[in-house]
Amino acid sequence: MKQKLYHIIYQNENFTKFIYSVIILNVICLILESYKFLYVNYHRVFMIIEYISIIIFTIEYVARIWVSNLDKRKDNQNYSNRIQYIFSGYGIIDIVSILPFYLPLFIPFDLRVIRILRLFRLVRILKIGRYSKSIKTIGIIIKEARPELTITLFVAFILLTLSSTLIFYVENQAQPDKFSNIGEAFWWSVATLTTVGYGDVYPVTSLGKFLSAIIALTGIGFIALPTGIISSAFIEKVKRDKEEKLCTCPSCGEAFNVE
Amino acid sequence: MKQKLYHIIYQNENFTKFIYSVIILNVICLILESYKFLYVNYHRVFMIIEYISIIIFTIEYVARIWVSNLDKRKDNQNYSNRIQYIFSGYGIIDIVSILPFYLPLFIPFDLRVIRILRLFRLVRILKIGRYSKSIKTIGIIIKEARPELTITLFVAFILLTLSSTLIFYVENQAQPDKFSNIGEAFWWSVATLTTVGYGDVYPVTSLGKFLSAIIALTGIGFIALPTGIISSAFIEKVKRDKEEKLCTCPSCGEAFNVE
Amino acid sequence: MKQKLYHIIYQNENFTKFIYSVIILNVICLILESYKFLYVNYHRVFMIIEYISIIIFTIEYVARIWVSNLDKRKDNQNYSNRIQYIFSGYGIIDIVSILPFYLPLFIPFDLRVIRILRLFRLVRILKIGRYSKSIKTIGIIIKEARPELTITLFVAFILLTLSSTLIFYVENQAQPDKFSNIGEAFWWSVATLTTVGYGDVYPVTSLGKFLSAIIALTGIGFIALPTGIISSAFIEKVKRDKEEKLCTCPSCGEAFNVE
Amino acid sequence: MKQKLYHIIYQNENFTKFIYSVIILNVICLILESYKFLYVNYHRVFMIIEYISIIIFTIEYVARIWVSNLDKRKDNQNYSNRIQYIFSGYGIIDIVSILPFYLPLFIPFDLRVIRILRLFRLVRILKIGRYSKSIKTIGIIIKEARPELTITLFVAFILLTLSSTLIFYVENQAQPDKFSNIGEAFWWSVATLTTVGYGDVYPVTSLGKFLSAIIALTGIGFIALPTGIISSAFIEKVKRDKEEKLCTCPSCGEAFNVE
Repeated sequence: MKQKLYHIIYQNENFTKFIYSVIILNVICLILESYKFLYVNYHRVFMIIEYISIIIFTIEYVARIWVSNLDKRKDNQNYSNRIQYIFSGYGIIDIVSILPFYLPLFIPFDLRVIRILRLFRLVRILKIGRYSKSIKTIGIIIKEARPELTITLFVAFILLTLSSTLIFYVENQAQPDKFSNIGEAFWWSVATLTTVGYGDVYPVTSLGKFLSAIIALTGIGFIALPTGIISSAFIEKVKRDKEEKLCTCPSCGEAFNVE
Repeated sequence: MKQKLYHIIYQNENFTKFIYSVIILNVICLILESYKFLYVNYHRVFMIIEYISIIIFTIEYVARIWVSNLDKRKDNQNYSNRIQYIFSGYGIIDIVSILPFYLPLFIPFDLRVIRILRLFRLVRILKIGRYSKSIKTIGIIIKEARPELTITLFVAFILLTLSSTLIFYVENQAQPDKFSNIGEAFWWSVATLTTVGYGDVYPVTSLGKFLSAIIALTGIGFIALPTGIISSAFIEKVKRDKEEKLCTCPSCGEAFNVE
Repeated sequence: MKQKLYHIIYQNENFTKFIYSVIILNVICLILESYKFLYVNYHRVFMIIEYISIIIFTIEYVARIWVSNLDKRKDNQNYSNRIQYIFSGYGIIDIVSILPFYLPLFIPFDLRVIRILRLFRLVRILKIGRYSKSIKTIGIIIKEARPELTITLFVAFILLTLSSTLIFYVENQAQPDKFSNIGEAFWWSVATLTTVGYGDVYPVTSLGKFLSAIIALTGIGFIALPTGIISSAFIEKVKRDKEEKLCTCPSCGEAFNVE
Repeated sequence: MKQKLYHIIYQNENFTKFIYSVIILNVICLILESYKFLYVNYHRVFMIIEYISIIIFTIEYVARIWVSNLDKRKDNQNYSNRIQYIFSGYGIIDIVSILPFYLPLFIPFDLRVIRILRLFRLVRILKIGRYSKSIKTIGIIIKEARPELTITLFVAFILLTLSSTLIFYVENQAQPDKFSNIGEAFWWSVATLTTVGYGDVYPVTSLGKFLSAIIALTGIGFIALPTGIISSAFIEKVKRDKEEKLCTCPSCGEAFNVE
């Protein structure tokens, strides 16, 4: 029976689709609940869906722990395989997405903490990653591009720090409320260098404007580097999967790969 | 005579140019009508152009249905070919761009509905697609890149959902009017992750700013993926059409085309 | 003497540098004049520089007309070569950059017209194009990429028209002052689809927000296409000029080109 | 002993890590100090860290000068090697990051000047460049791409000047406070053409909007060229380092490295 359950969880298409649907339903509920008039009128519906989801996810979690020692891919030791699952990325996601429901049953929390605990339902979105090929692709690309990402993220971080500190010293006196500390200046740096530019903070002094023009003109490219690397890695990967083609010389019939 | 009409519609350059011009004229009128002083003063002119356009497009539509069974490309069955045209993309565009004019003649509508019906005149812009090579190119590219687009649009959608939900929970209490529900938060996410950043909604709490800095720095690249794929596919296609180059096999010296 | 002058204008480094400097000086003056306190205090200095510049540019223009029939590159007909220069791009720039100074001497204008005429001094910046290699490179690239640019600009224009018209019909009633006509909606479209997003106009209705989210997510890539083509053509051209390298097979010594 | 010190400075991993840590600590202090409540409560802590850092950096600077004539890479002349270090980029950074602390001890400054002098502590962030591989990579790329950067920066500068001057003449009368001079118009140009678009300045006249739509649609690509060149050079370099791939000569079957 354990073997059967293992097959259901890891190879049964319908089980996958079912869990997938429950996750999507949870995300939709999370979005709809945020509309006050829907929450007030259909409070009970949301609650029932939540309870059922909790039951389903709990059963799924327990089942996954139970059958995890059947996983042939890892070496077949009862104990270590279960531990491995529990502390794996998805294992943690699985427990975190149900635990906040059970905690208040055992420990008496005040309402504010319960409110925050409910936020953890968001984590259920991440469970999609187990079933979605496209999110897996992104994951692989990020893993592959890690060294480049580390370098560029470091450069981006240095640049953000430098520009924040500079603009803070220049604009702090003119706008003590908006550039009250380097943290606030950091917010300006991010908004400027990602070119979002909400317009809630911007330099007003001549020196500040001059400086931020220089920062914007030179810095935007560097901040865009990490995302640019992911984008180009993604486009490259898709192209690679698609264009792996052989070329045959039409005169001597020899086949060879063309890049 | 039917054969002749078929030739006019599908092969006559002047007919194409004529319909093209009528479409362009319609678009110009649509734009000019939106200026109140022009609409008030030249109301009659716009009306006459509209009536004439309706007559032309109606004749075109009827003619297209009539001759559609002569289309040699599809198998030559009277009935099915006409049905095919009527339910094809351009067939629907053709009918939708004239129908709103005829509907009020048969069914009594109140003025509000008629106002909305007039909006469908916009659809006439899409008729350009039949004659414009560049719009056709875009269409082909989108069709070719569909698998990549599906993946990236899914990732973009998950990312938008995740960031909207997060920012909603963080900012809702501080700005209940601006982040009143996840739909509004979605609007913020789109404005931020496309880097438009109007500045009508932005986080004000420290946690919200920190979170949205992280979201902006990591997310912008993913949202730009679908458009990036279309752009690079377009540039690649244009390059491919242009640079069809000769390659010489280094072992036998024969020259042949690659790609 | 005419031959000598021809050599000075077309081959003398110092003459080129001199005219180049005068242009730069003019641009600097144009910028400085815009500062009221500088204009009030140094009005005379600006006037003297302007008079001297006019004299220099007039002499240059007359000299260029005089010697233009010596240009060996075109067939050597006195008359046609001069006409060719006068109606060439730079010929027109040369005359337009000095004419506004002479016009008021012959025709009595009112002050407002004279003010506008002064604007034509800006055209002098374009004279730099004759001497700057980088601007010439841009010119060549734009000429080479004209077919792609035409296609993408047309697509961009259709997209801007479509999104402007749509948002106008959706937002016009809610914000009659900001979306008063499709021209204003066009301004919104440009601000959104270039991701500038000043925040002076943005949709406020739910439908408008939904629509503009869709427009932004799908349209930004298309509007970026023309500039993307120029950018990639520029980067490609620079790379091509730099990387034209031969590869030698180390075992048989044969040299062949590697793309 | 001098030889030993030389080895410590240039080859000892722990010394490098130590200086690196002190720099990071200084940056963190600089950021934390900007928070008023932290500065008030932990003023003494910040002061002690500052004094210790000054002592460390001073010792480092003196040591570097002392041992700099042992550097074998340059020709071994006592005097010139020291001068070379002192006037090298990092030599200047080293002195500038400690000098502002010593200056007020010798010359009596008023408080405002001291405040400005404290700003020079920021320069210490730049000392990271000596130890960070990723910043060195950026440096190499910028050096390699200098000719392209010069061209594109020149084009960007011309474009900014042209658009600033144009918009100034068009908008100056309608918004004399926001477009008061071409300097202010320059600020608008940078905000628009980098697509940051804070929304503090934007055209309000019809002509101004039309003009700035044209400027935005055509100009954004050119302003993005310099940063685009750096980005693509960076991505290319990383790819090159990673993909050093084998190529097989198709005529003799020998494998060798390309690029």
